[in-house]
Amino acid sequence: MIKTMQVGDQRSYQRIITKEDVIKFGEVTGDMNPAHYDEAYTRTTMFKKPIVHGMLVGSLFSKIFGMEYPGVGTIYCSQSLTFLKPIYPDTKLTVKVTIKSINEEKNRVIFTTEIFNHSGDLALTGEAMLMPRKDV
Amino acid sequence: MIKTMQVGDQRSYQRIITKEDVIKFGEVTGDMNPAHYDEAYTRTTMFKKPIVHGMLVGSLFSKIFGMEYPGVGTIYCSQSLTFLKPIYPDTKLTVKVTIKSINEEKNRVIFTTEIFNHSGDLALTGEAMLMPRKDV
Repeated sequence: MIKTMQVGDQRSYQRIITKEDVIKFGEVTGDMNPAHYDEAYTRTTMFKKPIVHGMLVGSLFSKIFGMEYPGVGTIYCSQSLTFLKPIYPDTKLTVKVTIKSINEEKNRVIFTTEIFNHSGDLALTGEAMLMPRKDV
Repeated sequence: MIKTMQVGDQRSYQRIITKEDVIKFGEVTGDMNPAHYDEAYTRTTMFKKPIVHGMLVGSLFSKIFGMEYPGVGTIYCSQSLTFLKPIYPDTKLTVKVTIKSINEEKNRVIFTTEIFNHSGDLALTGEAMLMPRKDV
């Protein structure tokens, strides 16, 4: 697999996270922090409205890695996430991954991982290290 | 808040992630990779059985940070995750956070974040940077 990959290769998709997704994520992770659910409380915060869990936004890269590129058989070694801007439910996000470096000998690929908000501003950035499947 | 925090402070809890949680997480994130769902496929992989999404496991710290310690009002600045061992559904995990350093002037706290599997082995490690609420 890794032999066909090149630095600069990109994949992206668009996604709207709904309020229902935020509820489901809270149920699965146990994080029912009022910052994500309580309209009255959030009016007192710097974000003014309920925001999406940062870790839910940061979990959107996994779909690309596991299903599309490198695809099935990929092993996720690490992911870093820096949360730059709040993400609000029901807004359109762009999820983008770009190959930063390739170590063919060790079968490791590092991707830059980015989320852009509905205005096109970078809202989350980080890096992922992956091991693509070896058999292709 | 930060004035009452000390390097070495810890919080932890135990959690079992069920197969139903894995399905829900796949629905929310869109990652329906067969590594998490397809028993027959996973018998051909190094993990032998379906595994929990790494990002779901990495999302378990957020409950502590947002709801318990530092608690409501905390802002999540960053999280790094290194996936060391597979996590299987229906096994008991220990989720643990420990303060590594405190920058009182900048109101930033760095936590070591760890997940231990049912055997007590470190399965996921990383660091989180947080801004505790300022008003307490």
